[in-house]
Amino acid sequence: MARYPAHLTTLISYLKKFPGVGSKTAERFAFHLLDWKDAELQDLSSLLSELKKNILSCQICHCLMEETECPFCNLQKRDGSQLCVVSSAKDVYAIEDTKVYKGLYHVTGGLISPIDGRFPEHLKIDEIKQRIHSLQIKDVLLALDSTLEGDATSLFLKDELQCADVSVTRLAMGVPVGSSLDYIDGGTLARALLGRQNF
Amino acid sequence: MARYPAHLTTLISYLKKFPGVGSKTAERFAFHLLDWKDAELQDLSSLLSELKKNILSCQICHCLMEETECPFCNLQKRDGSQLCVVSSAKDVYAIEDTKVYKGLYHVTGGLISPIDGRFPEHLKIDEIKQRIHSLQIKDVLLALDSTLEGDATSLFLKDELQCADVSVTRLAMGVPVGSSLDYIDGGTLARALLGRQNF
Repeated sequence: MARYPAHLTTLISYLKKFPGVGSKTAERFAFHLLDWKDAELQDLSSLLSELKKNILSCQICHCLMEETECPFCNLQKRDGSQLCVVSSAKDVYAIEDTKVYKGLYHVTGGLISPIDGRFPEHLKIDEIKQRIHSLQIKDVLLALDSTLEGDATSLFLKDELQCADVSVTRLAMGVPVGSSLDYIDGGTLARALLGRQNF
Repeated sequence: MARYPAHLTTLISYLKKFPGVGSKTAERFAFHLLDWKDAELQDLSSLLSELKKNILSCQICHCLMEETECPFCNLQKRDGSQLCVVSSAKDVYAIEDTKVYKGLYHVTGGLISPIDGRFPEHLKIDEIKQRIHSLQIKDVLLALDSTLEGDATSLFLKDELQCADVSVTRLAMGVPVGSSLDYIDGGTLARALLGRQNF
């Protein structure tokens, strides 16, 4: 790597931490930052230094919140009989955007992945069980990634949470909207056939 | 776009300014930043706020420098008879990495691009001419991008700078090292044929 000024090298090493950013892209970002106005740099700097202070995590559902009250835990506005389990706080916003789901959320903060040192005890299952019990949840929807880790976590949570009073479902798997059958992989097509739906 | 907390939305709008970063990537970066340790965020924040203070631009050659003295203007260590003209301070480090060139540099800060409002007067040609005169430069190497704007700027600078005492050259154009002829575009191959070199 080129011998940039030390301050710039340190900045590049921080920018390389961003997901999907390698040395070349981090260098491009750093040189781009050099062209920013000082006022913009100061704004970004203060946004970063106050990030943890301004963006809080709800102690109950672990969604993001700005003020003292979590917008996703408000039982006056949300359906208190449904609980959607997601792995990251970002997924909550993707689900909210669909405007199809009005229930409560619970963010696990990750998926089971023994190779990365993430075991079932990281999922805070006791918290989920306690919320199901105290809120008298009827439906639990597992909205986890459709990956090896996501499927393993879904199966584990299904076994742990299913009981007489609670139905545990997961997101439908099948053909994505707007896709041509030619380009769909065999696994997805098989799931779409097995889970065929009525009109 | 999802209704993220306001602080996060502002952060995303700043991250979107990075080159090649759209909404989705900026959102990914912002949520990644939420997972950083507070100490790391404070470090990055202070790096950004002090960027303009710590990384200076040499008033003579416009290369980046950290201290009071520009490492590229030091005539004890550099060949004072050669001047390499580049468009950005980043290019200087790419050329230094090759360890082939030991002369002086001059950063124009951009290329001629009338469509973007960049005209020849932005190139600080008088500064270059003055340096050529005062340093008694013999060779000027134009190391600009091989694009429409780069070529236009090279041709313009050649006409302006060439005189009896100074030879003006540019980077050789041809086949990149390690490439297969199958995959080389016609324009590059034509330049490689026209500019064929002795062994």
